Amino acid sequence: MADNGLLVIISGPSGSGKGTVVKKLRPENNFALSISMTTRKPRPGEIDGIDYFFCTPDEFKNIRDQNGFLEHAQFCGNFYGTPRFYVEEQIAKNKFVVLEIDVNGALQVKEKFENCILIFLIPPTMKELENRLILRNTESPETIEDRLYRAREEVKLIDKYDYLIINDEIDKAVEKINMVVMAENLRPSRNISTVKKLNGSEK
Amino acid sequence: MADNGLLVIISGPSGSGKGTVVKKLRPENNFALSISMTTRKPRPGEIDGIDYFFCTPDEFKNIRDQNGFLEHAQFCGNFYGTPRFYVEEQIAKNKFVVLEIDVNGALQVKEKFENCILIFLIPPTMKELENRLILRNTESPETIEDRLYRAREEVKLIDKYDYLIINDEIDKAVEKINMVVMAENLRPSRNISTVKKLNGSEK
Repeated sequence: MADNGLLVIISGPSGSGKGTVVKKLRPENNFALSISMTTRKPRPGEIDGIDYFFCTPDEFKNIRDQNGFLEHAQFCGNFYGTPRFYVEEQIAKNKFVVLEIDVNGALQVKEKFENCILIFLIPPTMKELENRLILRNTESPETIEDRLYRAREEVKLIDKYDYLIINDEIDKAVEKINMVVMAENLRPSRNISTVKKLNGSEK
Repeated sequence: MADNGLLVIISGPSGSGKGTVVKKLRPENNFALSISMTTRKPRPGEIDGIDYFFCTPDEFKNIRDQNGFLEHAQFCGNFYGTPRFYVEEQIAKNKFVVLEIDVNGALQVKEKFENCILIFLIPPTMKELENRLILRNTESPETIEDRLYRAREEVKLIDKYDYLIINDEIDKAVEKINMVVMAENLRPSRNISTVKKLNGSEK
């Protein structure tokens, strides 16, 4: 068994199916979702420490100033961030911590946190992506055009990613993520204690 | 499907079981064995282009001088080398070309050939390695001591490898190699044509 877990960052355009895929990554396979911290007020039913870590703007700024977020951003006047402490705590428990995040956020995290892999999820073609967005039937043509524009921009950064997974079938995409994570667990740098034992420097 | 195959280098000390594992990597999973070139005379039953590429010392030197070997060495007055042309030909056919080779050879190849991964196969402990060598009952205590010494030297270079696979059960080790190769096939750099298609620069 590897020494510890791993941060698994999953990006992909709206319509890539990443939400569905992420829901199918099972705790019994050692996956755990990253939990964001936010200054937004809890909605009815949301539980602190499960859905989000809720905090005040001052608390947020404090953590941010101490480099306590792997990435952070502001939406609609609220702050959101990925707290480092939670990711590190889960990784120490040998979990694969899943962080679903856009490309800019992903690249920010990669710079700050070495023990991570970046997976880009995408439908087989841009045409297919467009079809999926149209079939949703919830978005205006302008929103769809905007999402496609963003997707094309994100695709340009694929070579910054470690793995590219074509999501043509949900279960196969999930299977591939499992495979990637298990393969990554075989890196010598994630098995220092085994290597030490083999080297005879530890029994 | 990835654009092309991959050179899969497998190293591990004598007693690590790498020969048995390599035999179980199946052609139906796209594996193909690398074929060495040698100046040694064919033995009865050995077929040129299957067991080895047999050649004269002059032919060997010619190829070597043109940088045609990924690595080469001399044993008992004969030359042996891994011809680049065969590896490239198989990789172009989307094969995972398996090269079983010692650590020094592996590191030579890695420098010369980018599209490769290095897998180190090892029993769970050095004690287990010793037990396996003793159980073979074919080697003198001196030979066993020599093999263990080499194993300890090789283990020091594990961090140069991409993957470390503990071979405590043959079938599981084979499964892990399959997994690693499939995960490596998801690298963006091995899926340039898919990326181009997504970028719209190719239909």
